[in-house]
Amino acid sequence: MKIAICGAGTVGRGVTQILQDNQALITARTGKAIEITVVASRSVPTDEIFKDIAYTADIGSVCARQDVDVVVELMGGTTDAKVLIETALSAGKSVVTANKALIAEHGDALFALATKHEVALLYEAAVAGSIPIIKVIKESLAGNQVAWLAGIINGTANFILTEMAASGPTRTFDEVLQEAQTLGYAEADPTFDIEGIDAAHKLTILSALAFDQPLMLAHVQIEGISSLDSVDFKFARELGFKIKHLGIARCQNGQLEMAVHPSFVPATAILSQIDGVQNAVLVCGDAAGEILCAGAGAGAGPTGSAVVSDLIDLVQGTSSSGSLGGRSSALKALPVRPAAEVVSGYYLRISVEDQPGVMSAVTAILARRTISLDKILQEDIAPNRSFIVLVTDPIQHGVISDAINELQEMTSVIAPVQSIRVFR
Amino acid sequence: MKIAICGAGTVGRGVTQILQDNQALITARTGKAIEITVVASRSVPTDEIFKDIAYTADIGSVCARQDVDVVVELMGGTTDAKVLIETALSAGKSVVTANKALIAEHGDALFALATKHEVALLYEAAVAGSIPIIKVIKESLAGNQVAWLAGIINGTANFILTEMAASGPTRTFDEVLQEAQTLGYAEADPTFDIEGIDAAHKLTILSALAFDQPLMLAHVQIEGISSLDSVDFKFARELGFKIKHLGIARCQNGQLEMAVHPSFVPATAILSQIDGVQNAVLVCGDAAGEILCAGAGAGAGPTGSAVVSDLIDLVQGTSSSGSLGGRSSALKALPVRPAAEVVSGYYLRISVEDQPGVMSAVTAILARRTISLDKILQEDIAPNRSFIVLVTDPIQHGVISDAINELQEMTSVIAPVQSIRVFR
Repeated sequence: MKIAICGAGTVGRGVTQILQDNQALITARTGKAIEITVVASRSVPTDEIFKDIAYTADIGSVCARQDVDVVVELMGGTTDAKVLIETALSAGKSVVTANKALIAEHGDALFALATKHEVALLYEAAVAGSIPIIKVIKESLAGNQVAWLAGIINGTANFILTEMAASGPTRTFDEVLQEAQTLGYAEADPTFDIEGIDAAHKLTILSALAFDQPLMLAHVQIEGISSLDSVDFKFARELGFKIKHLGIARCQNGQLEMAVHPSFVPATAILSQIDGVQNAVLVCGDAAGEILCAGAGAGAGPTGSAVVSDLIDLVQGTSSSGSLGGRSSALKALPVRPAAEVVSGYYLRISVEDQPGVMSAVTAILARRTISLDKILQEDIAPNRSFIVLVTDPIQHGVISDAINELQEMTSVIAPVQSIRVFR
Repeated sequence: MKIAICGAGTVGRGVTQILQDNQALITARTGKAIEITVVASRSVPTDEIFKDIAYTADIGSVCARQDVDVVVELMGGTTDAKVLIETALSAGKSVVTANKALIAEHGDALFALATKHEVALLYEAAVAGSIPIIKVIKESLAGNQVAWLAGIINGTANFILTEMAASGPTRTFDEVLQEAQTLGYAEADPTFDIEGIDAAHKLTILSALAFDQPLMLAHVQIEGISSLDSVDFKFARELGFKIKHLGIARCQNGQLEMAVHPSFVPATAILSQIDGVQNAVLVCGDAAGEILCAGAGAGAGPTGSAVVSDLIDLVQGTSSSGSLGGRSSALKALPVRPAAEVVSGYYLRISVEDQPGVMSAVTAILARRTISLDKILQEDIAPNRSFIVLVTDPIQHGVISDAINELQEMTSVIAPVQSIRVFR
């Protein structure tokens, strides 16, 4: 099988390295060879690894070549990459991509195009790097009705949260973000990662696979991590939680919920053990129960490994082709649960002036809405000022929002109420 | 696709339940139907779930039926099940099995038979229940050279270890085993589980897949958990470890190591978070890095889910057929590293009479063999008696064995030296 590598950045280098290093192994295992015909990228790749491979700057040209069976799209972005994939599929080439944004935004049309031309469009590398979560949901859990899935699917955000939890109150969010940028874990413009957009792309793909729906990116509730304060990490620890940025998709009573937000996760839960740039996804099937897959969420080797696994499926003819899950005809948009009706526990941190009766007034507001409390504590910040910190039992979002609005209007509440959802 | 379910026990019931409950879902996803033609078992199944399915007591007869495409072997054991699978493969039927003992002991011949008859022999359910570790190694990591894998692959043993860690010094191994039996987590004769034989079967399969070798069960070093004492759990906790029963396979410098034994695992390591009857496998690939898969290791639903995933691969034609990894020609026996040369850290617990110089004598024996110490502590047990407890840096097994023998010969050492390997 002859392939074109389009894009000579980190992942392109990773894929090329694996195919070179493990060529004999892959051929022995599959009985077939995977050969790189050409590397295509806008500028001449300088990396040593590409030196014996033909190069073209005319990326689109690979789609017309007889000596290219599969186009590997590793350029990123949603404009040129989209044109390349459309051209390749239309020319009868299968495509392997790591492009989560493109799949999440334009996947339905691209899968339809692949089906029309009877070729495959594979994307294992688009979600969670090395972790084979696409294959696990699509194949290993194919006999299961999935109830929900929850994942740490952005390594940058998880690195920042891990550092903030370890740093104590001395470091601000901005300082930790700067460290992540210095280490190469965060982009110069980190918006996509820290505001949850990248995670929403990935969640959109996982949700579509798990619940047999089209890609419904616009319906993901998205909240980033930039509003977290170091004091929230302190209270999380004291209350027995860690703060993780989770993507959660759930289908209940025929209604779909998709959300990306910071979450209080019990410190003993398995997702709380996933630190630094690691990723993990927990999927709950009706038969299998909960399955966790964890590993490196990014990097040349891990993401390259996922791309190569798709290539191996193609060379062996063992991939389901066409639609999202190899089953486009079965996809059906699900009604989305209104945000106000989504149920979760909540952590609230309320900054108050110490006045007689303030605790009583706070708890009365919650009690009036039958919001029951799991934990509550009060801690002095300064003379006459303290935090009231509480964790509620599960409650509809609309109810807690109303309560927060009313709390906010209390004269003794002197700063915006912080609220973070609790994961189970 | 028409199938025969052979064996109407827990897993047979689980598979039947999933195929009934999720029939519409599976058909929508695959575009094909999976129908149960007949259930075959020695005695008439009484479970309600089988009431509308044809039954036969003549298990072998399913292999000759035109209306059976796939034989699902869920009887267990290595005699009748072997004959059934041989007959089925020879009759041109693909086989799905959950039988780890049979695959580990006779898999090479059975895979050769499957290859000869151009049918598939699939066994996802044979290792770690719901966890799709066979597919992950065989397909997702197919582009990787695996360096090592380590897993908690026996739920009974893990349940007992978890309980012993939680119980403190008040409960003996036998008491906890009895609890596991009462709860249905351990068999009346628990030998296979607690002595590591079941784990060795599973490790044999994982190792063969990961390192492209034939099944080499006879080369697994096996140590069970029955020699563990509650005091070892106490010291593990004090030293920052948990005790887990691990199956470990490693290929280094072309030499293979396979071992099943209790292990001190750092309390913060991910494998230490896997408690109760849960299973988990950590695999390290050269490109992907470390990938963890965790979930329920047994039970009707979880193991049934794995069986059904194999059936779905068959109905979609997306399974690699024939040999262990779909690549029998590439299998090659690896030289086995002599047990004495396997390197590991060790926890030693030495019961001594308190005499001047005993600590000095103990450390001198270790120093003479250049065994360096990571941790050491001494604790009184009774007047004039104490434990010397230490953790060594990695050292060859032969060296530590000699040291233990010499320690054992000291007159002040008054009981057998306990030794447990440290995992990393």
